[in-house]
Amino acid sequence: MLDTYRECYRKDLLDSVVPFWLKHSLDHECGGYFTCLDRDGTVFDTKKYLWLQGRAIWMFARLYNEVERRQEWLDAATLGVEFIRKHMWDEKGRVYFSLTREGKPFFYQRKPYAAVFCMMGLLEYYKATGERVYFDEAVDLYWRIGEWVKNPALMDRPVLEGAPSLSNLANVMVLAGMTLELMPVHDDPRYLQVLQQAAEGVVRHYLPDRRILIENVPLSGERIDEWPEGRLFSPGHSIEVAWFLLHLLERLPDESLRRLALDAIEGSLEMGWDPEYGGLYYFMDIQGKPTLQLEASMKLWWVHTEAIYALVLAYTLTHEPRWLEWLERVHTYAYQHFADPEYGEWFGYCDRYGKVTHTLKGGSYKGFFHVPRSLLFSIQRLESA
Amino acid sequence: MLDTYRECYRKDLLDSVVPFWLKHSLDHECGGYFTCLDRDGTVFDTKKYLWLQGRAIWMFARLYNEVERRQEWLDAATLGVEFIRKHMWDEKGRVYFSLTREGKPFFYQRKPYAAVFCMMGLLEYYKATGERVYFDEAVDLYWRIGEWVKNPALMDRPVLEGAPSLSNLANVMVLAGMTLELMPVHDDPRYLQVLQQAAEGVVRHYLPDRRILIENVPLSGERIDEWPEGRLFSPGHSIEVAWFLLHLLERLPDESLRRLALDAIEGSLEMGWDPEYGGLYYFMDIQGKPTLQLEASMKLWWVHTEAIYALVLAYTLTHEPRWLEWLERVHTYAYQHFADPEYGEWFGYCDRYGKVTHTLKGGSYKGFFHVPRSLLFSIQRLESA
Repeated sequence: MLDTYRECYRKDLLDSVVPFWLKHSLDHECGGYFTCLDRDGTVFDTKKYLWLQGRAIWMFARLYNEVERRQEWLDAATLGVEFIRKHMWDEKGRVYFSLTREGKPFFYQRKPYAAVFCMMGLLEYYKATGERVYFDEAVDLYWRIGEWVKNPALMDRPVLEGAPSLSNLANVMVLAGMTLELMPVHDDPRYLQVLQQAAEGVVRHYLPDRRILIENVPLSGERIDEWPEGRLFSPGHSIEVAWFLLHLLERLPDESLRRLALDAIEGSLEMGWDPEYGGLYYFMDIQGKPTLQLEASMKLWWVHTEAIYALVLAYTLTHEPRWLEWLERVHTYAYQHFADPEYGEWFGYCDRYGKVTHTLKGGSYKGFFHVPRSLLFSIQRLESA
Repeated sequence: MLDTYRECYRKDLLDSVVPFWLKHSLDHECGGYFTCLDRDGTVFDTKKYLWLQGRAIWMFARLYNEVERRQEWLDAATLGVEFIRKHMWDEKGRVYFSLTREGKPFFYQRKPYAAVFCMMGLLEYYKATGERVYFDEAVDLYWRIGEWVKNPALMDRPVLEGAPSLSNLANVMVLAGMTLELMPVHDDPRYLQVLQQAAEGVVRHYLPDRRILIENVPLSGERIDEWPEGRLFSPGHSIEVAWFLLHLLERLPDESLRRLALDAIEGSLEMGWDPEYGGLYYFMDIQGKPTLQLEASMKLWWVHTEAIYALVLAYTLTHEPRWLEWLERVHTYAYQHFADPEYGEWFGYCDRYGKVTHTLKGGSYKGFFHVPRSLLFSIQRLESA
């Protein structure tokens, strides 16, 4: 059984997903990666989205570091690294959201995530090459991102009187994620502190009665459940943070947090799974009220890739059969609806009924990241189990 | 035939739509309007969204000005006007996007539309009351919005080297829309100039071979069709701008523009109508490439209300039967899918297949505006025809 999954993921990763991106995504002329790719790899938007530049660098370098020292993977990472280092910075040392094909700034988003993924790309590239300059840039960016998250005005996001201080699940996760990547190569006592805070942060988002992690919780005493923001649940996000937490606990063991993480995986699957049409919802309101997100009932690829890896991880940690049952269900749904053996890679977006709504394989938010990361991590867990 | 429509719209407006909002939307305690209302009117978000505050003021005052001098309509408008005048401004004289229930600033959007709709509300309220202060504030805001549109840096939207100067269809439309509302009450030769520029602006967005208006066109020679932004078509928006243009032409008659506007209505319906499941799409790519909007294939209420009024207008202007055929089709779809005779008002969001995806009657973008405006304007045209 586990061998079947492992073989499926290995074949998918190496014969379908990686070749698709290697073939269609690299912009040898201007540097960096095209990510807006139609079903067959045709570029339908030449812009360079920095979340996805950083993520693809990270992924190519990670494959090089952990699967095989293939020169073409390192070269692909180099293509991205050189591009972002030249073009990603604005005049205040922040990172743009998107660039033109040639690297001219196109859009600035008042969020830290472009910088987060570029930091991860630089760091993984350092691990591949050993060249200190990439490490230094990554660490420098890491601390600045921490400041931006603490003080959003630094990102030009005004701090407004009516907006209470919220803890946002994405921010908790990215800070922990970057830190976990840094610790194996850099000894700094502050990292453990960041992890400790992240662990406490996750707990703040946990609803014990439902066993899920919600998106936004107040940092002080306010109640925000009269707002949709305060009732928002993203099953994929909750599951992703739960497996991040399990990774974090390797550095900071804690049995009750381990139980919380496992419960969050199961609770999120139970609440997020569509009993009528299958698949996991994108967004839900925990009180069953309407969401403001129009795309809430759609089924997105990444929600399912995160669930697959979380389930592989949960099973290999516990050997409890309940995880295998869920894995079978999610795996089957994902391979029936998202995978595209004909052209390679996965589709990204289905409607509630599971019908593909967009023929694209990559866009402004889907790149060379969630599918290969989930496949790689799953293979690695299944191999070591 | 026309009598049937007129009666249907009158009944819908006065017995279903207006009572729904009067009953559920007014916040007598804190002022302003709740707009996030579930199917039965239950408030699911107490925040005050300024696009929708301005639009509701405009609508209540318009009903008072043009249907009947009902005190409760004027009172409802007053409730909004007092609220926005107290709370909408940021420290730079710009308008927030959303406020808490009490009026504290919650979010600032780098766009001019909140200000546009507040300007329209103030102006219509001036027409209802004759009190000069509202007129002065509206005119002052009008000229400032013009500056913001010309120079987005004033809205904190950085002007970036890689982002070419684009004409955006929404901006063309709102400038014309505000101007058309001002002209009956204010004699200023500059208004005609603004209309002239708006008319030229619309022409720039017109694709003669497809007979549609597209969302973004370059202001100088660049080609932007390698970007999804440059290929984006919103059928509802194209139709809405076309009827705006027909209104504009009452001030600035031009036979070829009149033909263009009518062609844009027909072309947009032909390209935007879903031949398989009926209804008009939200977004399309004119080259059939994937859109970046996940909700592109959904069917939205406002797209259909704009089509209904555009068709009533086109028919009453031309008496050509082709418009009645389309009206029958759009009207039937809209009343079968969006109207909710049980609780009043319309649903807003259906999936491609016409199934309601969100039970809400109002949200952060749906308020007391598109449905009643379309019904009122249609009734008025049908009465005068």
